[in-house]
Amino acid sequence: MSQVYNFSAGPAMLPVEVMRRAEQEFCNWKGLGVSVMEVSHRGKDFIEVATEAEQNLRDLLNIPDNYKVLFCHGGARAHFATLPMNLLGDKTTADYIVSGYWSESAAKEAEKYCTPNVIQITEEKDGVVSLKPMKEWPLSDDAAYVHYCPNETIGGLAIHEEPDFPEDKIIVADYSSSILSKPIDVSRYGVIYAGAQKNIGPAGLTIVIIREDLLGKASPQTPSVFDYTVLAKHDSMFNTPPTFAWYLAGMVFKWLKEQGGLQEMAKRNYEKSQLLYNAIDDSQFYINRVAVENRSWMNVPFQMQNPALDAKFIDGAKEQGLLSLKGHKVAGGMRASIYNAMPLAGVQALVDFMADFERHNAQ
Amino acid sequence: MSQVYNFSAGPAMLPVEVMRRAEQEFCNWKGLGVSVMEVSHRGKDFIEVATEAEQNLRDLLNIPDNYKVLFCHGGARAHFATLPMNLLGDKTTADYIVSGYWSESAAKEAEKYCTPNVIQITEEKDGVVSLKPMKEWPLSDDAAYVHYCPNETIGGLAIHEEPDFPEDKIIVADYSSSILSKPIDVSRYGVIYAGAQKNIGPAGLTIVIIREDLLGKASPQTPSVFDYTVLAKHDSMFNTPPTFAWYLAGMVFKWLKEQGGLQEMAKRNYEKSQLLYNAIDDSQFYINRVAVENRSWMNVPFQMQNPALDAKFIDGAKEQGLLSLKGHKVAGGMRASIYNAMPLAGVQALVDFMADFERHNAQ
Repeated sequence: MSQVYNFSAGPAMLPVEVMRRAEQEFCNWKGLGVSVMEVSHRGKDFIEVATEAEQNLRDLLNIPDNYKVLFCHGGARAHFATLPMNLLGDKTTADYIVSGYWSESAAKEAEKYCTPNVIQITEEKDGVVSLKPMKEWPLSDDAAYVHYCPNETIGGLAIHEEPDFPEDKIIVADYSSSILSKPIDVSRYGVIYAGAQKNIGPAGLTIVIIREDLLGKASPQTPSVFDYTVLAKHDSMFNTPPTFAWYLAGMVFKWLKEQGGLQEMAKRNYEKSQLLYNAIDDSQFYINRVAVENRSWMNVPFQMQNPALDAKFIDGAKEQGLLSLKGHKVAGGMRASIYNAMPLAGVQALVDFMADFERHNAQ
Repeated sequence: MSQVYNFSAGPAMLPVEVMRRAEQEFCNWKGLGVSVMEVSHRGKDFIEVATEAEQNLRDLLNIPDNYKVLFCHGGARAHFATLPMNLLGDKTTADYIVSGYWSESAAKEAEKYCTPNVIQITEEKDGVVSLKPMKEWPLSDDAAYVHYCPNETIGGLAIHEEPDFPEDKIIVADYSSSILSKPIDVSRYGVIYAGAQKNIGPAGLTIVIIREDLLGKASPQTPSVFDYTVLAKHDSMFNTPPTFAWYLAGMVFKWLKEQGGLQEMAKRNYEKSQLLYNAIDDSQFYINRVAVENRSWMNVPFQMQNPALDAKFIDGAKEQGLLSLKGHKVAGGMRASIYNAMPLAGVQALVDFMADFERHNAQ
């Protein structure tokens, strides 16, 4: 089989080296004669996996000691509900910054538990979409926390600034699609959470990084398996965790360290995204409508002047081993998701295909 | 490596044939050059997996058309909370039959949402534990539903009867550790639910089978990802499902059909469990304290007269490739979990080891 590059937005490609290793030990893990997914989560062997995964994540993100790391079941969307359940305390509102589909969905789910203060930050001028900078966000005084999404996968919109607010503001960030793509200062956040299926591992696992002083406030109706205080107390093993996803996440963390950590990933991700954005900008054929300062390093949506060519582009790319380039149904067009696992060679292959496609199809 | 038999209570062994197949296509699924866990859940290829898995489960359990099958994130324990959230409607109580650790945990979690009517059915006489038959359960008139657990993994206690109650009783059963072990009449239940990590697949997936008329009653505070009505409407893809677990579950369902379906599994499971219970009962050395009519076919706990030998037994068994025989910390002693994937040869190897151990250690 020829080289394949998978641009799926999520579930997304995982590092080739990690997948090969997991394949090798799939049925005979550590020489035990069984798979890692067939052993007890409470046994010594799996506890080692769990502990090492957390430590490597702490090392990568330089997570301060006063933060708990939780390995939760399910996807980030569960936390659209369980974050307000855990964090509101006696407050009745929270600030929800809306920059696209996912942050808007989080705000909508929060309506079940409070009256969210919804703050739209998307602006459009001359067909170019940008996001209001943080200093212009009209935060409220009585919000329990400020929720935002640093990377919107559908629009390809990123907030590259890190939070810089007064200390009493509790910043909650849905980092599902950009966690581990570059270094961040965890101490600026109250909670960072991320579904695994983009930069961490397979779907079915969500990481929550929470400052310890925010624990202990869950509403009495919070399901125990999503009460962060319960999870923290039980080292994320109040119930059986998604062990195989945890194991793969741990291998991805280790791989990231071997690559040189997040400084190196930031360098690579910037380089990959610039290669693609430059190809788009330098062409008269492809368009990306996001303002330069808000362009995502992870998800690059682009359109053609003639949308009737979309299917031809996507099918032609697939024939060349460039998979899953169809844009989200909400946005149309194309989208290349280029998470940590995507090598520069994959983006180069895409850019080459785009140039070739343009040559053959430009009028 | 010599033959290994894994008696883990869960996460538990999966069928060898399924694991070999999954290993073969781990990095190159359907010749696509990617893993099944790296593709979009909304793509044609994965939708085929999802649809086929549901159909095979429907075939195996003969699920009537007026039942929805949901593939949910996480473990059964989440549903200890979300079942009352989904089912109570305007009622304020539900009957919780308690036969052990798990049914008791379900009742305790329900306290967050209602005043459960807790009905203890465990009886002990002359050191033998039994469960009150269904006709003696003192159900209440105003309960929204009756919750019970047909198989308690820790105590090795099973309710082999199927529900036979007036039609207005809504029966909810936690089948986590015995689903698919024998045929059941789904039409007798309002809801059947089961965490995957015993008889279905890896941890991180829960199956919910729910009668359609029970949908539409979720409390407004139910997280959307656990609102069964939302999940049913979106074919369990309101958010990204745990795709790899779903895929493996589908392979297990297919394997079960190839084996001859649940009639055949019931025959095998009965035979395996009887082999082990007979070995225990015929010995002066091993003890199982469960009344014959309530003995589990899935989890067989046993003790020795001298508990000081436990560690020696467990270590010696491990040396012979008989893994994870340590009893739950609550119960002590030993426990052999012999789910569908455990072949008769595995139980025979255990029984042989037990006889040998007795010969060398009986006083």
